[in-house]
Amino acid sequence: MTKHPVVELTSEASWNLVEDKFTPYGKETLAKLITFLQDDVYPCVRLAHSQIPKDPVQRWNTVIPVVKELKVKARKLGLWNLFLSKAHYPEHGVPLTNLEYAVMAEILGRGGQIASEAVNCSAPDTGNMEVLARYGSPDQQKKWLIPLLNGEIRSAFSMTERFVSSSDARNINTSIRREGSDIVINGHKWWISGAGDPRTRVHLVLGKSDPDHPDSYKQHSVVVVPADTPGVRVVRPMEVFGYDDAPEGHCEIIYDDVRVPLSNLVLGWGRGFEIIQGRLGPGRIHHCMRSIGAASYALDLMIQRVTDPTRKTFGKYLYEHDTVVAEIAKSRSEIEGARLLVLSAALQIDKYKAKGALKEIGIAKFVVPQMACTVVDRAMQAFGAEGLSQDQELASMYAQLRTLRMADGPDAVHIQQVGQRELRRANELRKRAQELRQKEAIVFKKAGIRSHL
Amino acid sequence: MTKHPVVELTSEASWNLVEDKFTPYGKETLAKLITFLQDDVYPCVRLAHSQIPKDPVQRWNTVIPVVKELKVKARKLGLWNLFLSKAHYPEHGVPLTNLEYAVMAEILGRGGQIASEAVNCSAPDTGNMEVLARYGSPDQQKKWLIPLLNGEIRSAFSMTERFVSSSDARNINTSIRREGSDIVINGHKWWISGAGDPRTRVHLVLGKSDPDHPDSYKQHSVVVVPADTPGVRVVRPMEVFGYDDAPEGHCEIIYDDVRVPLSNLVLGWGRGFEIIQGRLGPGRIHHCMRSIGAASYALDLMIQRVTDPTRKTFGKYLYEHDTVVAEIAKSRSEIEGARLLVLSAALQIDKYKAKGALKEIGIAKFVVPQMACTVVDRAMQAFGAEGLSQDQELASMYAQLRTLRMADGPDAVHIQQVGQRELRRANELRKRAQELRQKEAIVFKKAGIRSHL
Amino acid sequence: MTKHPVVELTSEASWNLVEDKFTPYGKETLAKLITFLQDDVYPCVRLAHSQIPKDPVQRWNTVIPVVKELKVKARKLGLWNLFLSKAHYPEHGVPLTNLEYAVMAEILGRGGQIASEAVNCSAPDTGNMEVLARYGSPDQQKKWLIPLLNGEIRSAFSMTERFVSSSDARNINTSIRREGSDIVINGHKWWISGAGDPRTRVHLVLGKSDPDHPDSYKQHSVVVVPADTPGVRVVRPMEVFGYDDAPEGHCEIIYDDVRVPLSNLVLGWGRGFEIIQGRLGPGRIHHCMRSIGAASYALDLMIQRVTDPTRKTFGKYLYEHDTVVAEIAKSRSEIEGARLLVLSAALQIDKYKAKGALKEIGIAKFVVPQMACTVVDRAMQAFGAEGLSQDQELASMYAQLRTLRMADGPDAVHIQQVGQRELRRANELRKRAQELRQKEAIVFKKAGIRSHL
Amino acid sequence: MTKHPVVELTSEASWNLVEDKFTPYGKETLAKLITFLQDDVYPCVRLAHSQIPKDPVQRWNTVIPVVKELKVKARKLGLWNLFLSKAHYPEHGVPLTNLEYAVMAEILGRGGQIASEAVNCSAPDTGNMEVLARYGSPDQQKKWLIPLLNGEIRSAFSMTERFVSSSDARNINTSIRREGSDIVINGHKWWISGAGDPRTRVHLVLGKSDPDHPDSYKQHSVVVVPADTPGVRVVRPMEVFGYDDAPEGHCEIIYDDVRVPLSNLVLGWGRGFEIIQGRLGPGRIHHCMRSIGAASYALDLMIQRVTDPTRKTFGKYLYEHDTVVAEIAKSRSEIEGARLLVLSAALQIDKYKAKGALKEIGIAKFVVPQMACTVVDRAMQAFGAEGLSQDQELASMYAQLRTLRMADGPDAVHIQQVGQRELRRANELRKRAQELRQKEAIVFKKAGIRSHL
Repeated sequence: MTKHPVVELTSEASWNLVEDKFTPYGKETLAKLITFLQDDVYPCVRLAHSQIPKDPVQRWNTVIPVVKELKVKARKLGLWNLFLSKAHYPEHGVPLTNLEYAVMAEILGRGGQIASEAVNCSAPDTGNMEVLARYGSPDQQKKWLIPLLNGEIRSAFSMTERFVSSSDARNINTSIRREGSDIVINGHKWWISGAGDPRTRVHLVLGKSDPDHPDSYKQHSVVVVPADTPGVRVVRPMEVFGYDDAPEGHCEIIYDDVRVPLSNLVLGWGRGFEIIQGRLGPGRIHHCMRSIGAASYALDLMIQRVTDPTRKTFGKYLYEHDTVVAEIAKSRSEIEGARLLVLSAALQIDKYKAKGALKEIGIAKFVVPQMACTVVDRAMQAFGAEGLSQDQELASMYAQLRTLRMADGPDAVHIQQVGQRELRRANELRKRAQELRQKEAIVFKKAGIRSHL
Repeated sequence: MTKHPVVELTSEASWNLVEDKFTPYGKETLAKLITFLQDDVYPCVRLAHSQIPKDPVQRWNTVIPVVKELKVKARKLGLWNLFLSKAHYPEHGVPLTNLEYAVMAEILGRGGQIASEAVNCSAPDTGNMEVLARYGSPDQQKKWLIPLLNGEIRSAFSMTERFVSSSDARNINTSIRREGSDIVINGHKWWISGAGDPRTRVHLVLGKSDPDHPDSYKQHSVVVVPADTPGVRVVRPMEVFGYDDAPEGHCEIIYDDVRVPLSNLVLGWGRGFEIIQGRLGPGRIHHCMRSIGAASYALDLMIQRVTDPTRKTFGKYLYEHDTVVAEIAKSRSEIEGARLLVLSAALQIDKYKAKGALKEIGIAKFVVPQMACTVVDRAMQAFGAEGLSQDQELASMYAQLRTLRMADGPDAVHIQQVGQRELRRANELRKRAQELRQKEAIVFKKAGIRSHL
Repeated sequence: MTKHPVVELTSEASWNLVEDKFTPYGKETLAKLITFLQDDVYPCVRLAHSQIPKDPVQRWNTVIPVVKELKVKARKLGLWNLFLSKAHYPEHGVPLTNLEYAVMAEILGRGGQIASEAVNCSAPDTGNMEVLARYGSPDQQKKWLIPLLNGEIRSAFSMTERFVSSSDARNINTSIRREGSDIVINGHKWWISGAGDPRTRVHLVLGKSDPDHPDSYKQHSVVVVPADTPGVRVVRPMEVFGYDDAPEGHCEIIYDDVRVPLSNLVLGWGRGFEIIQGRLGPGRIHHCMRSIGAASYALDLMIQRVTDPTRKTFGKYLYEHDTVVAEIAKSRSEIEGARLLVLSAALQIDKYKAKGALKEIGIAKFVVPQMACTVVDRAMQAFGAEGLSQDQELASMYAQLRTLRMADGPDAVHIQQVGQRELRRANELRKRAQELRQKEAIVFKKAGIRSHL
Repeated sequence: MTKHPVVELTSEASWNLVEDKFTPYGKETLAKLITFLQDDVYPCVRLAHSQIPKDPVQRWNTVIPVVKELKVKARKLGLWNLFLSKAHYPEHGVPLTNLEYAVMAEILGRGGQIASEAVNCSAPDTGNMEVLARYGSPDQQKKWLIPLLNGEIRSAFSMTERFVSSSDARNINTSIRREGSDIVINGHKWWISGAGDPRTRVHLVLGKSDPDHPDSYKQHSVVVVPADTPGVRVVRPMEVFGYDDAPEGHCEIIYDDVRVPLSNLVLGWGRGFEIIQGRLGPGRIHHCMRSIGAASYALDLMIQRVTDPTRKTFGKYLYEHDTVVAEIAKSRSEIEGARLLVLSAALQIDKYKAKGALKEIGIAKFVVPQMACTVVDRAMQAFGAEGLSQDQELASMYAQLRTLRMADGPDAVHIQQVGQRELRRANELRKRAQELRQKEAIVFKKAGIRSHL
C-alpha cells in the first residue's frame, strides 16, 4: 500500500482519520503542494531571508526576488488562494474545504512566511480577501479584491491601537466620521502587519463611527483606505524580541485626518464587529495549523540535532539521555493532540461555519500556540546557544509563535470564552443529575437499602 | 438535524470526525448502549457499592446482586462482549471495530467498573478472553473461554511479582517447569486483579519456563491454572490509597508447587511474550477511553458544583472566579485532545492491528491517565474536602486512574518507547535535510549569494 | 567541625542560614528531639498502626498503647508542647521561637501523626491550646487547657459545615443562641478532626450567634462544648481517599439542641473571627513544616528505591535513567526552596506576630502542600504499584497532604490573598515609576536626545 | 522602626533572615548602592540604549557615554568591584561576603547590564578578574588585572566552540601548543561575550594543550591573548533572538596561528579545568541574583500594568481577573523561594568556598533562570504585544534570561549533577533504614505483634 506523501510530513494516524473526507481534487492538490514545497519552496527559505538587505532603510523597500518567482510558479501550478473555500466564497473560492486547507496549512507552516506567501495564502491578506469577497461592494472588489487574489498587491488590517486595550475590540477608538460624501479617519494604530511592505496598497481600518450607539458592538465600522492616501503615516516598525520582520513588519501608524470617499465604507455603518468576527474564525485555524507545522518542523530539527554523530557530552550522545527522549516523546504527543484538535475544529467550521465552531476554534486558539512555543523551546534547548541564534530558525519561530498567544485575542480571552461555553451546560447537567437521582431512589427503594446521601 | 445521542455524553466535534466510520450496526448498538446505561446502569452504581458489605470477610464473598441483574438485561439487549472485534476474532467477536468500541468504552467509563461489568467488558476478563480466543486450544476454549464469554465465571491474569521489577516483564521469575505430563508452578505474585472475586475460576499465569534461553523474550510461558488448584494461595488484597476494591481486589498470591496438566500450557513453550504483547494493545486503549469517560464525568460534576446556587464565598459563586472558569476550559481542551488521540489510535489498530499502532497506543497510554488524574484533581479541589471523601466518586476515581500510570507499564516506559520510535526517523530526516541543503546550495548559487552557513 | 545532627535530616544550607537564630536551649532541645525521634519514635510508627484494630467498631475505641508509652517518655525528656512559644504564651509556653519550632516540626513530620502526638504537638489540640491559653477564662483553662497541656485529654475544633461553603467562614451557620444562663447550639458539622478519638473530651464550636450584625466578621462566636453533652452526635467518620484515619478521624457531627452554661463562651460574643484568625496563623506554618518533613522523607525513600540493587529494568537500574535523576534533583530543589519559605515565614511571625506575616504565611500555605504532593507523587511512581499500597507510607502521606490543599482555606483563597497583597504595592510602584520618568527626562534632555516614548 | 532601604526593592522576609549576617560596612555599602542606583543608574538605562547607534558598523565602535560617566561616579562613591570578596581575594578584594554581594547583585539586576557595568561588576570581566587575581602571575596581573580592576579595559573569556558540544568542556579542542618560547593557538570559538567591545584588550582562551593526557580533565590550559594579536579574528556577532547586544556582543572568533609568549600561560599547563571551575562558582550565583532582580522588576512592571486605570477590557480592569491575581501571587512566591535558594547558596560559598557549595549552586543555577523566564513571560502576556516589543524591557530581558538556561552549563547538566549528588546519600540512607528496621523488629517483638513486611 502506498501512503499519501502527506504522511511523511504530518502524521499517518491523523491522515487516516481525515483521508476519506478529502475529495480527489483535495488529495491531488495536496500532493502537488507537497511536491512544490519540497522541490521549490523549502530550498528557497534561507535564500529569501538573505535577499532582505541589512540596511535599516533598504530592507523596507524590498520585494524579495525569489518569492516573486515562487509566486509565478505556484499560480501556474494552480496552487493559489487555497485558503478561500468555494463553499463559503462561491465566486472566488477554490473547491477545498477548511479541513482540506487545514492539512495544507500545516505543511505550509513548515516553510514559514515565505511558503504561505508563495501560494498567496499569507496573513493578513487572507483575512482581507475574505472580508472583501464577502462584504465588499463590486467596486471595492474590483479595485482591491481582484489584485489581492492575483497576488499583485498586499494589504493591511488596521485594528490594534496604541494606548488602548485592544483585546476588547470595543475599546478601539480611532474616529471614523462622515463629512459630506467623505469619510474622515483619525487614529493611532500599531502592530499593523504588512503595513511596511512596499507592495501594500490598502488598509482596512476599524474605527468608531457611532460612539453613542447603545449596543457597544454596533459602534464600529470598517473603511478601506488606500495606503497612499494623504495623512496615512507609517511611524515605525514594532519589533518582536528584536526582530522587525521586514519588509512586512508590524507597524505603528497614525491616521491624521485621512479622507476617503463614502464608497470606501465596507458593508455599512456600525457593522465593524460583524466583519471582524467573520474574519477571525477560519483565520485563527490557519494560524494554528501553520503553528503545528512549525512545531513539527522544530521537532524534526531537534531529532536531527540530538542524533548528530559529532556531538557527545559526558560520554553519551544527546539521544542517549532519556530526558531528551522523553522530551521528544512529549513533543510528539502534544503535536499529535493539537493537530487533531485543529482538524476537528476545521471540520466543525465546514459543517456549521465559524459561528457553530466557536468552542473548537477557541480551544485550538489557546492550546496550539502554547504547545508550539513549548516544543520550539525544547528544541532550542537541545541546540544550545545556537538554537537562540540567527543560524537556526528556532528563535525567530519562537518569537512569531509567542505573538500568537496575543494576536486575535490573548490566551486568557479564549480560555474564558471556552470556559463560559462549558458553563452553559450546567442547567442541562443538573437536570440530568436530578433524573438520575430519581432513578437511583427507585432502585435503592426496590433493593430495600437506604442511601447515605 | 437530530444529533446522535452520543453527542451529549462525549463531544460533537469528535463524533463528526468519526461518525462516517461507524457501520449502521455500530451506530445502533451505540444508541442502545447509551439508553441502557442511562436508564439502567448509571442509576445502579451507588446501589452496587452499597451492596458490598463493610465486613472485612464478607465483602470478599459477594456477588453484587444488582450487577447480576444488569448482566442479564444487557445480554438480552445484545450489549455483550462489545470489546471483542469480529475482524480480529472471527469466531467469537462482535461486528464492531476498535474505533466503534472506543467510543462505547468512553461512555462505559462514566459508570465505573459496574458499567463495564454489566456488558461483560471488564478487565482483566477482556484481555483473558482475547488470549484464549486467539491462542487457546479447543479444550481450553471450551473450559474457560465459553464461560467467560457467557459472563458465568471471572478470571485473573497473573503477571506482576512481588520483590521483582515487573515493568520489565523479563524479570518475572515465577518458575514454570514440566514434570512428566504435569506443569509445576512456584511463584509469588501480587496486584492480581480479580483474584479476590468469588466467581474467579481461572488464572492465566506468566512465568519463566526456560531461564537459559538466549533470547530473553523467549524464556516465558503462560499456563492456565484453575483457581481452586491446590497450592494456589490468595494471601491478601493489596490496597490502593486505602481502597481494597472488594470483591475483585488486586491480590497477593503465592503459587506453591501448583500442579496442572500439560494441556494447560497456552500456545506453546516460550511464547509468553507473544501472548502478553497481543493482549495488551487494544486493552490499553480500552483503559484509556474509560479514563476519558471518567475525566469527562468528573468535569461534568465540577461544572455542577461550581454553579451550585447554594454555594457562595466572599460574595461570589465559584463559577464567577475566572480561575475556576479557566480550569474548566483547560480540562475541556485536555479531554478533547486526549479523546482524539485515543480514537486515532483505535482507528490505527483497526487498520494495522496493535503492532502497527504502537506509537499511537504508546502516546495514548502515557497522555490519558495523567490528563485524567489532572482533571479529576481539579474537580476534587472544586468540591473541597467533600471531593476527597466517600460522598463523591472523585477520590476513588482518582485512585483508579492513578494506578493506570503504572499498570501495563509505567508512564516512563511508554514515553521512552514513543521517543525511541521518533528517533528512528533520524536517518530519514537527515537524508531529507541533506537533499534540502543541496537544493539550497543550487538556489543560492543561482542567485549569486554566499550562504553564511 | 562537627555538624549539628539536624543537618542529616534537613539541610545543611538551611541550618547555616538559621543556626545563629537559635538559643542554646533551642539547639539542645532540637538535638534531644532528634535522638528521641530516631531512637524511640520512628521505630514505633508501624507498630502504632498495627495496634489499631481492623474491626470497624473497635478501631474507634482505641488508645494506641505505644503512643501512650512514647508520651510518657517524651514528657520526661522535656520534649513537650514545643509548639507553644513562651514569647506569645508567657504562662504556659516553652522558651522556643516559632523559627525554632519550625525546624523541629519538619523532623516531626518525618514521623507522621504519631511523632507529633508523642510530644503533645498534634493538631487540632495545638490550635485549641493556643485558643484556650490566649482567650480562655481561668475556669476554662483549668478544666480543659491544663489537661490538654498535660496530654491527658484530646479535643476537636468544630468549624466546617456540611452543605455550606465553609472556605468563607462567614457562611458558617450553626446556630449559637443564649437562653437564659445557657447557650444552645444547633448545627451540622463535618470534617471535625479528632472527634472520633475516645480521649476527646471537648469541642470548640464555631457558630453564628448574631446573624444580623452588620459586620459579617462579627456574627460568630466560639463555645466550649464537652464531648459528652447530650445532643452531641458523632454521625460517622469521613474518609479521605479510602482512609478513615481512626481512631482520630474527621467526623460528621450533629449538634442537636446542645446546651452548655454561659461560662463556656470563649472570649465574648461575636469574637469568633478574632479567635480563628489568631488560631490559624502559626498552625498553618506547623502543617507546612511537617509537610516538608514528609516530602523530604518521601524523597529519601525514593532514593533508596531507585538505588535498590535488586531492581533492574531493561538493563538499567532506575537511578541510571536520567529522568529519574532529574526528578530527584527537582524534588530536592523544591523541598529546599519550600523549607526556606516556611522558615522565613516563621521568623516573620516571631518578629511581627502572625498578623505581620500574612503574606509569608499565605505563600507557604499554597506552595508547600502542592510541592509536597508532587514530591510524594514522584516517589510513588518510582515505587510502582507498591507505592500506592498499604506496604509503603506514601499513599497515605499523599492523602493527608492532599487535604492540606483545602484545610484552613483552599489554595485558591491563599493565592488570591497573596496576590491582593501584592497589588497594594501598585500605588507606591507607580509613584516610584513617575519619579524615575522625571529623572529620565532630565538625563535625556541633558544628553540632547529625544526619547521615543 | 525604620526599615533598611533594601526592603523596598527586595523582600522584608529575606532581609530579616540575612540582616544579622551583614557587617556594618556591608549595610552601609548596600544603602549607598541603592541610592546610587535609584538616583543615577536606573534613570540612565534607556538613555544608555539610545546612545548605541543603529548603524550596523558604528554600534560596535561605541563606548556608551553615560556609562562612562556613571563609572566615574560609582568609583568615587566606593561602589566598585563589589563582587570581589576580600575573604577570597585578600589583595584586591573588597570587604564584602558573597552573601552581601548577592543582595547587591539582585538590585543591580533591576538595572540590567548598565547597572553592573557602572560598578565594574559585569561579566565576563568579573570572572576574568577572579582568574587573574587568583592564578595570574605578577606580570599578568600588572598588565591586565590592574586595568580591569580600574575599569579601564574590558575582557573576554574564550571557551565555547563552534561545531563542538561545549557543555562538556572536555570537548573543547582549540589547539594550544608550545613552540619554543611561544604559545601558538588555533581554534574556532563563538558566543564569546564582550569580544565586540572596543575596550576589550584581552581574551582568556581555553584550549587543549595536552590531548593525550590520560585524565581528560588535565588536557586543557588557559592562555592570555591580547585582543590585537595578529590572527585573532572576530568574525561576526551572534544574535540571541533578534538582539546583537552591541557593543559587547557574543562573537564568533577564529584564532588563526595566534602567537603569544610562554609567559601568557595562566597557572600552568593542563590546569584549565582548575581555572574554569574556580571561575564559575560564584559567577553563577551572581547571574542568579541579577536574574532574581530582573524577575522582581518584571513583576513590578506587571503590577503597574494590570492596575493601569486606563486599561479595561470586558468591563473589568486586568487586576480584577483572579487569574491575573493568581499569576502575580505565583510569581511572587517563586521569586521569594528562588531568592532564598540563592542567598542560601551564597552563604554556603562564604562558609565552604564554591567547592563546598556545589549542590546549592547547582540548584540555584537550574531553578532561577527558568523561574525568571516564567515570571517575565507572564509579565509580557499582561502587557500584550507591547510586552514583546522594543517599548518595554521585557522581551530583551527574556532573551537574556533564556540564554542563562544554557550559559555556564545547560539546565540538564546542573540537574543531573544535583541529582547525582543526592544519589550519593543512598548508602547512608540505606544504613539508617536498616538500623530503623532492626529497632522496629525489637518493638514489634516486645509488643508481641508480627509485622506484615
